[in-house]
Amino acid sequence: MKALIYNGPAQKAWVEKAKPGIEAPTDVVVRITHTTICGSDLHILKGDVPTVTPGRTLGHEGVGVIEEIGLAVSSYKKGDHVLISCITACGRCNYCKHQMYAHCSDGGWLLGNTIDGTQAEYVRIPYADHSLYPIPPGADEEALVMLSDILPTGFEIGVLNGQIKPGDTVAIVGAGPVGMAALLTAQFYSPARLIMVDMDSNRLEVARTFGATDVIRVGDGDAVQRVLELTGGIGVDVAIEAVGLPATFNICQSILAPGARLANVGVHGKSVELHTEKLWMQNISISMGLVNTNTTPTLLQTVQSGRIDPGKLITHRFPLDQIETAYEVFGNAAKEKALKVILNA
Amino acid sequence: MKALIYNGPAQKAWVEKAKPGIEAPTDVVVRITHTTICGSDLHILKGDVPTVTPGRTLGHEGVGVIEEIGLAVSSYKKGDHVLISCITACGRCNYCKHQMYAHCSDGGWLLGNTIDGTQAEYVRIPYADHSLYPIPPGADEEALVMLSDILPTGFEIGVLNGQIKPGDTVAIVGAGPVGMAALLTAQFYSPARLIMVDMDSNRLEVARTFGATDVIRVGDGDAVQRVLELTGGIGVDVAIEAVGLPATFNICQSILAPGARLANVGVHGKSVELHTEKLWMQNISISMGLVNTNTTPTLLQTVQSGRIDPGKLITHRFPLDQIETAYEVFGNAAKEKALKVILNA
Amino acid sequence: MKALIYNGPAQKAWVEKAKPGIEAPTDVVVRITHTTICGSDLHILKGDVPTVTPGRTLGHEGVGVIEEIGLAVSSYKKGDHVLISCITACGRCNYCKHQMYAHCSDGGWLLGNTIDGTQAEYVRIPYADHSLYPIPPGADEEALVMLSDILPTGFEIGVLNGQIKPGDTVAIVGAGPVGMAALLTAQFYSPARLIMVDMDSNRLEVARTFGATDVIRVGDGDAVQRVLELTGGIGVDVAIEAVGLPATFNICQSILAPGARLANVGVHGKSVELHTEKLWMQNISISMGLVNTNTTPTLLQTVQSGRIDPGKLITHRFPLDQIETAYEVFGNAAKEKALKVILNA
Amino acid sequence: MKALIYNGPAQKAWVEKAKPGIEAPTDVVVRITHTTICGSDLHILKGDVPTVTPGRTLGHEGVGVIEEIGLAVSSYKKGDHVLISCITACGRCNYCKHQMYAHCSDGGWLLGNTIDGTQAEYVRIPYADHSLYPIPPGADEEALVMLSDILPTGFEIGVLNGQIKPGDTVAIVGAGPVGMAALLTAQFYSPARLIMVDMDSNRLEVARTFGATDVIRVGDGDAVQRVLELTGGIGVDVAIEAVGLPATFNICQSILAPGARLANVGVHGKSVELHTEKLWMQNISISMGLVNTNTTPTLLQTVQSGRIDPGKLITHRFPLDQIETAYEVFGNAAKEKALKVILNA
Repeated sequence: MKALIYNGPAQKAWVEKAKPGIEAPTDVVVRITHTTICGSDLHILKGDVPTVTPGRTLGHEGVGVIEEIGLAVSSYKKGDHVLISCITACGRCNYCKHQMYAHCSDGGWLLGNTIDGTQAEYVRIPYADHSLYPIPPGADEEALVMLSDILPTGFEIGVLNGQIKPGDTVAIVGAGPVGMAALLTAQFYSPARLIMVDMDSNRLEVARTFGATDVIRVGDGDAVQRVLELTGGIGVDVAIEAVGLPATFNICQSILAPGARLANVGVHGKSVELHTEKLWMQNISISMGLVNTNTTPTLLQTVQSGRIDPGKLITHRFPLDQIETAYEVFGNAAKEKALKVILNA
Repeated sequence: MKALIYNGPAQKAWVEKAKPGIEAPTDVVVRITHTTICGSDLHILKGDVPTVTPGRTLGHEGVGVIEEIGLAVSSYKKGDHVLISCITACGRCNYCKHQMYAHCSDGGWLLGNTIDGTQAEYVRIPYADHSLYPIPPGADEEALVMLSDILPTGFEIGVLNGQIKPGDTVAIVGAGPVGMAALLTAQFYSPARLIMVDMDSNRLEVARTFGATDVIRVGDGDAVQRVLELTGGIGVDVAIEAVGLPATFNICQSILAPGARLANVGVHGKSVELHTEKLWMQNISISMGLVNTNTTPTLLQTVQSGRIDPGKLITHRFPLDQIETAYEVFGNAAKEKALKVILNA
Repeated sequence: MKALIYNGPAQKAWVEKAKPGIEAPTDVVVRITHTTICGSDLHILKGDVPTVTPGRTLGHEGVGVIEEIGLAVSSYKKGDHVLISCITACGRCNYCKHQMYAHCSDGGWLLGNTIDGTQAEYVRIPYADHSLYPIPPGADEEALVMLSDILPTGFEIGVLNGQIKPGDTVAIVGAGPVGMAALLTAQFYSPARLIMVDMDSNRLEVARTFGATDVIRVGDGDAVQRVLELTGGIGVDVAIEAVGLPATFNICQSILAPGARLANVGVHGKSVELHTEKLWMQNISISMGLVNTNTTPTLLQTVQSGRIDPGKLITHRFPLDQIETAYEVFGNAAKEKALKVILNA
Repeated sequence: MKALIYNGPAQKAWVEKAKPGIEAPTDVVVRITHTTICGSDLHILKGDVPTVTPGRTLGHEGVGVIEEIGLAVSSYKKGDHVLISCITACGRCNYCKHQMYAHCSDGGWLLGNTIDGTQAEYVRIPYADHSLYPIPPGADEEALVMLSDILPTGFEIGVLNGQIKPGDTVAIVGAGPVGMAALLTAQFYSPARLIMVDMDSNRLEVARTFGATDVIRVGDGDAVQRVLELTGGIGVDVAIEAVGLPATFNICQSILAPGARLANVGVHGKSVELHTEKLWMQNISISMGLVNTNTTPTLLQTVQSGRIDPGKLITHRFPLDQIETAYEVFGNAAKEKALKVILNA
């Protein structure tokens, strides 16, 4: 079969590789029908993720059809259409029992990291009973690729950790795919105001069509000052960091009203300076974490009932064998006006 | 001034009465600009509410303008436009400190009950700092009358007590004004399904335009059976009782999925039979209570931001001095296709 | 092997029976070292539980040693000492993923009900990875039998559903084993007052030594009146029903302060009259359900750290082959001053 | 009357000063019977709190007797024994309605900061209805001084923000008065393990007698390493920072298990380095804030019911006019083995 592999920093290749098989009775093999590229795939290609070794098939998002099935898998059968979670969960450890699948003692983020991933014609999924979700008949399977990672990430780590409530004022710093996923899912809770902050005018325009009530372009004056002006000098109830840099974290910690929550979604490569000398008396909280994908069934219900259309996040489509072109487009997201690129097999 | 008074069972009159004045330094007097009639006013007129004595001015909803102000009132000044809460709160007792204003040791439901109410040209509001809300400039003041009682009732006692979550399946039994208020505010939390149950086809049609995904007419077959069919035999996550009768309570307790919540909003005159012999093992909960109106500021924000339009609930309008005609219309709600009738002064 | 079987209403027998074996790869067979008798075993013997058919081995509580193990069981090995949960959980269904093991689509209360139970020398446990808990070295294994059912039942269905908070006033109606389990675990949350209500003076005396601050004997005047006197006429923050009769449920619904919670733990055979005509405006909630045993790991930690001593609940001990005598004693609990009777093999 | 005033950095004086009177109808004047010194008084004397100007009477804790009373005060009368909250609350602003008294728009931390405080024979208390608590008859009034600030601070900002649950493993870094208050109130929730970390062997010994299950002396090897060893390499469920320095904050952020909460109680003068590069994927949360004292009624109930004895925190007692000696002792807490020093008038 064909797969997109990591060959060391800045090197990737679309190569022929052995088709995966069942290794444990809880495994299935899925034939990929749709996959996508994540910002963390770009991080890996920079050489920033040491757990990824040369030869590894990339990708942790996708939907497909079950091709082979282990003897101990009870929830699925051959031919089932499934959504692949970016997080693998054994279902038995203490973390899994509390739905903290990100910290599964034998799982977590494995796909495209420590085992071969989804940017291939076939992928082996361990612990299939706990790591896949059935796709309802008639669903838009392409759009459901958004539920492998970015939609639950924006929802769980941004919206739920941020405890958004009806009437709240929310700022989301970063209008990339995960920030947009937070923007879409924030509306499940009917905030009064959704302020989007980014450097890219095009993304801010898109954010408006996705439900942002206000947009602030970083660079057009001081973003912190602008948020404070919009909020009568008080600040926001929830700030969602969706970039992963000290500068954007700093915007977030500078716009918090008393009692506010800062929900960090961004993947950080460096530490940040936390202004405890100002914040200690502000009765605020800060959260951060890796997605558990435990909300995937809920998200599937909101998609099926039409409350949310994750297909909106897809800007480009390619055949799977043109994945290298797709990486070019996604790697130049601002210029290409790209959010998520879909690969169809 | 003119006022609509209760004169004993089935007797009301639009009479001349002394204009109220300041009695305590925490009082204000409000000139009513808009008021409305509540289902509980009809209960009173049946003689069902013994705390209401002949001569009492009815009404506990309204907006108006502050005409006189006590010396200890600090949040308002003469001429302010204000929303009157149906619940009076001293702000000092232990219940008030926990926002349980319904149980205020010197307040609670007083207006149109134990003191003169809002169906008059003027009304005295005790503890004004805690019992009024400022109306934002430019607001639709007529629509805000819905925030005196029915919108917070549907939201607090139905939606919040029912703990509606994104993706939930919700049934609301009763499509009167409070059931409709629950229907509108339930959507703050993006349930996947909103099933409305009532006897009146017209109200069910209106419910569809207000966001109901499914409607069931009681009488067209067994309502319990219909809800179970719609939910794959499992039942609903949340059932909201918005009538106040044993039969409708019984529908609600018969459609609960394991883990479900039954939020009773209806005002009951009799006890109900609770099927503990079936429910004891179903891991369900049942809540009931009088509105605290502590969510009024949140509701104001959702109205101002356009998340909800409470004006939808208004079907009829009359000048205040035609309030007796308005009672006729509201008392024949099904025939008149009435939800809320507004009186404008 | 020997087992205690149900032979139809009022008939039980200690008989020779085939030792159970592995039937599914997720099974284990446990050699019982300690078991006990539950109030529901007495219900079964009255013929009140139609799912139990003649020939069924009774019992759903116990600890023991793994004797045989299925190929798909990964958390245990032969020889491990284990605590048996009264609830069997597949770990894969939607209910299990949300820790609602009581409603497992292929489990729930099976042991001593629809499959053979623990009052035997050996028992087969399905879905062992999710239905057993490892016993820490050095633990008092006899005392841990209390964690199979009654301690999690009192804790989950009484204390957690009742949302007991520091400083609360709590009444527990029923000082049997489950009421006592609620009394012990209620103290995890430091209520200010713990009022125990029962008909049996001896049990009330024991309750005092277990931490009750006040005791009320039903029969010495009106229990409702007594609770109201103790609480300045206001009522309690939490009422726990631990009997399962209309009369005891009625005490509970009559002593609720505004904002209070009624947590029903009792197993009811009949419906109850719920006084909605009084309670609708009291802002109260009522919960009921079957134990999930999802708190067992937490309870094990509290036992191991000495916060609670479940061994206190054991009043009598017998060799396993004298289980018929043990049933006599437990069936005359008041006269025998029995709480829990332990059978040691 | 006599009062202890701030006269600029490192200068304080016990001076004659005008007795305060009623300035607003919501004021009372309290004759102080017991007061104490807080760590923040020492900060003020270093000149670190610019809002405190020369001539200001220090102190924000105390109990006393109402001597004079404003016309609008309804909850108290002359002669009442009262507990003074360190936080003044108007009771009317949006923050007060949500019990966020620390952020009251006309209150917050005023006493001994922007208005004269409690280290005097008399003190004026604004908004008395919301800023005082009645002392139950027979209470140990000296011990209740601990409820003015440190007990609610440890409880609200440490224990409640940290969301301690039965069975949790908790580390408290800092065994000063507030860390000890967190240690005492943490036990309301029955954690399995309470690890106390400090530099002072004496305080750690005292912590053991107050309920710490493990103590770690900073300096005896690496504290982080020691905590990880005690927790099987996993870390704690809750870390409470009760010092306010980058080094102690750093210990806390280095010992968090996946899913853990870091509750910062310490007052910080500098920013800290937050290790987002490690923590972003750990699903942790961090909270910080100023006490609201909204839990004071709850704490009073736990004291009155004997669940907690705050008097344990008092190590020294002086007559009020020896307050300068008391400052000496409290300023050399380690040498003097001092926790809280009480001044009796």
